[in-house]
Amino acid sequence: MQGMNVKSQVRLYKHMSFVEDLKYNEDGLIPAIAQQFDSKEMLMMAWMNKASIEETLETGRVCFWSRSRQAFWRKGESSGQVQMLKEFRVDCDNDTLLLLVDQTGPACHTGRRTCFYKVFKDENLLVDSEPLIDPKELYGK
Amino acid sequence: MQGMNVKSQVRLYKHMSFVEDLKYNEDGLIPAIAQQFDSKEMLMMAWMNKASIEETLETGRVCFWSRSRQAFWRKGESSGQVQMLKEFRVDCDNDTLLLLVDQTGPACHTGRRTCFYKVFKDENLLVDSEPLIDPKELYGK
Repeated sequence: MQGMNVKSQVRLYKHMSFVEDLKYNEDGLIPAIAQQFDSKEMLMMAWMNKASIEETLETGRVCFWSRSRQAFWRKGESSGQVQMLKEFRVDCDNDTLLLLVDQTGPACHTGRRTCFYKVFKDENLLVDSEPLIDPKELYGK
Repeated sequence: MQGMNVKSQVRLYKHMSFVEDLKYNEDGLIPAIAQQFDSKEMLMMAWMNKASIEETLETGRVCFWSRSRQAFWRKGESSGQVQMLKEFRVDCDNDTLLLLVDQTGPACHTGRRTCFYKVFKDENLLVDSEPLIDPKELYGK
């Protein structure tokens, strides 16, 4: 792993025991940020619960928890735009996750590569990227 | 701005009116991700309220809302490690912010550059970076 200082590798938890000690909110959820592993582009933020974290670590394919559907949200299940896990990180307070992923095509339901396509510029909020794929094509028919 | 497709700049809001339309949680807060603008390193995730967003946009210096202290958290106020705003982004659902920042020194209260210093590797959760500065020095005396 690039830039890793081997000396400083201190094991905090064995296997998946850390999942129990993460700080979940009152709904049992923790925010998870997805970043493209090579370009470092920020793609999206979503939520995970214990079961979706375990599934993600076991399968290597990112699975969030959909708050609106109250169901597993296996990224790409309906759009085909899957998110494969490259690295799984936890922050200092155990209350935020960082997923380094390899995202196929758009991460955003609008068909854009990233969900963060609105920028505050010259005193206005602007859209500054176009969809890669028409969402009608993504979610089809 | 690099990579910006000028054709696609659609103005959604004038001035700071968008701040009213962001989706805040029941505590009036919205998650804000801080990313180093040039290296694209993920630094931290924290929370903002309306007033801290307005202050950040007006001053160009990042101000979060501290949930533990229930007070403004002007990044660097006690440690000197300020976070200057380079770009302010909003996601598709208006419920997450992405701040491109220029972070002086460590972003993390442990003295590390990033809060995301724990990595799941070889079936264990490991620490893989060292503090840049001893936190005792940062928060002093």
